[in-house]
Amino acid sequence: MRILEESNIEDIALGAAVLGTGGGGDPYIGMLMARRAIRDYGPVELYSLDEFHDDDLIVPTAMMGAPTVMVEKMPNGDDIINAFRSIGKYIGKPIKATMSIEAGGLNSVVPIYVAARERLPMVDCDGMGRAFPELQMVTHTIYGISSTPFAMSDERGNTVLMETISNKWTETFARSVTVNMGAMSMIALYAATVSELKEASIQGTMTKAETIGRTIRAARQQDEDPVNTVRESVGGYLVFKGKISDVERRTEAGFAKGDAYIEGIDTYIGSQLQLSFQNEHLAARIDGEFRVTVPDLIVLLDVDTGEPVTTEAMRYGYRVAVIAIPCDQKWRGEKGLELVGPRFFGYDVDYVPVEQRFSNP
Amino acid sequence: MRILEESNIEDIALGAAVLGTGGGGDPYIGMLMARRAIRDYGPVELYSLDEFHDDDLIVPTAMMGAPTVMVEKMPNGDDIINAFRSIGKYIGKPIKATMSIEAGGLNSVVPIYVAARERLPMVDCDGMGRAFPELQMVTHTIYGISSTPFAMSDERGNTVLMETISNKWTETFARSVTVNMGAMSMIALYAATVSELKEASIQGTMTKAETIGRTIRAARQQDEDPVNTVRESVGGYLVFKGKISDVERRTEAGFAKGDAYIEGIDTYIGSQLQLSFQNEHLAARIDGEFRVTVPDLIVLLDVDTGEPVTTEAMRYGYRVAVIAIPCDQKWRGEKGLELVGPRFFGYDVDYVPVEQRFSNP
Repeated sequence: MRILEESNIEDIALGAAVLGTGGGGDPYIGMLMARRAIRDYGPVELYSLDEFHDDDLIVPTAMMGAPTVMVEKMPNGDDIINAFRSIGKYIGKPIKATMSIEAGGLNSVVPIYVAARERLPMVDCDGMGRAFPELQMVTHTIYGISSTPFAMSDERGNTVLMETISNKWTETFARSVTVNMGAMSMIALYAATVSELKEASIQGTMTKAETIGRTIRAARQQDEDPVNTVRESVGGYLVFKGKISDVERRTEAGFAKGDAYIEGIDTYIGSQLQLSFQNEHLAARIDGEFRVTVPDLIVLLDVDTGEPVTTEAMRYGYRVAVIAIPCDQKWRGEKGLELVGPRFFGYDVDYVPVEQRFSNP
Repeated sequence: MRILEESNIEDIALGAAVLGTGGGGDPYIGMLMARRAIRDYGPVELYSLDEFHDDDLIVPTAMMGAPTVMVEKMPNGDDIINAFRSIGKYIGKPIKATMSIEAGGLNSVVPIYVAARERLPMVDCDGMGRAFPELQMVTHTIYGISSTPFAMSDERGNTVLMETISNKWTETFARSVTVNMGAMSMIALYAATVSELKEASIQGTMTKAETIGRTIRAARQQDEDPVNTVRESVGGYLVFKGKISDVERRTEAGFAKGDAYIEGIDTYIGSQLQLSFQNEHLAARIDGEFRVTVPDLIVLLDVDTGEPVTTEAMRYGYRVAVIAIPCDQKWRGEKGLELVGPRFFGYDVDYVPVEQRFSNP
């Protein structure tokens, strides 16, 4: 167990925004929310799964919706507490801790807010090791853990609970209600025991995010090549360097979808990278050819600062580096690729692990 | 208390289809469902509110969705039982009876199915005295009764529960999920005590429906003018007689919307009646002028048989009579008209009670 203080939050949110591959929520809003919670309610205890009893019940908490909206509409805090408590009341058993369901600027720290306010511990694991756009896209689904009982709340005081026959149905219903709630909702889901999570979750994600965040801050201060420093710290590969020349966006069925086009600089002059996203970056094509796809992580970094650029922050003229990071092994099996492989998102290509396409200098 | 046998069902479904003003579900499907339940599980006891204790808990049951879809997709029965039981489990108190929330061919008999299968009594009342397209449009809303806890289930086994801050929010969320469920869901809602219902509900609706249904059957057998017989039995006014010349339909956000045009016959030659509907008939214009609007009931009857024609059954060439029936007084107050008056549906006219515009021969 270790204690998360206000001072840890910035690194976690920043590092998780790297793992968020463009999505997972805005790190600045997440940071504000979690820091305020720790200031108001006290620091949060972060445990590894081994420190719990095997039958302890853990309930993850998160935000659902299009990140583009969240920038304008900050969650009020009561909403996520309502969702979390609804699950406890519905199950009728004590919840021992909360955890992150995805690594992302906001969704890594929403559970910190809940843990601080509810005076509950938090577990150092998540269900993706990155961010994904849809609710069924978690390692829990691979291992047969149900997303329900599922609870979602808005800032007005509305709460919707679900019992579904599949995690995909939860996604379908919850996405519609999220759109009704103003394109954003706060959710509690995938209640599971510690023994289930030992098999199904991705462990150490919070600590990994914090380490990445600390590296970015250090690189910025020491005036090194920040992109290279971050790339090394995440075990990633440099895919491209360039300037954003165009961003096409559409908000569709509650998702922020679109494509960004990056014109090459340095050794990439004359080449163009097309980055397709749905909340998160899904696929990178260089001059029309797929080079990186889900489930591997595609990360956009600001060339000058090494900071991650979220999909909603992409703007014409930004100079960025595109980094690819191998995903967790759980995603590379048959069930994982069925859930989150390129074909699920409509790309007619097989998944090729990024380390087979790129090597580091 | 009296007993509802298989032999009562046809009259109830037929008469409720008159009160359903074109909506409330197909009476044939409702009839099949309820008759099968009585055959399989036994007859149903129908009580008046006075026969219960004041604090007894009553939970209405119904179908939600576009009637056009329901004709092709018959509810399987488990869905409505799932929704009903979810409310009981959620509240944690015994439910003493079920009731109809709206009078309509299907929604008058869905509770008969539930009562038969759950071996529970049914109450002789409803929340509209007619049918309306949206969930908040019940007399319960006028008297401040919440639609939540609300439960909805589909035939696959999915269940969604809600706690909302207003009945309009329940409508918004439930409508989206109904669309996801295939444009139809089975619902349990507006849990209330008998003392609340004595004030808020419309009493005697089931018996009224049965009387109307019996009248139609008798008129058919005795070769009288069936339209006039039905009109007299419901205390209504003859508005128009004609032949359907056109029906424009669209399924929009889970509703069956559109307009039907009726060319005059008999004394109405040269006139045209435009009938606007959203699941139910909302407004009748003759030669462009509003003559009947919600909340008064607009009923289409087959000229030859006196049987009600639902919005989904309207076809080119049908010879129909348009009857208007005064709505329950509860709808004519300020709160009632705010909920279901013509302006709510976008018609820029004041409500004029039908008996001020028409008189009987």
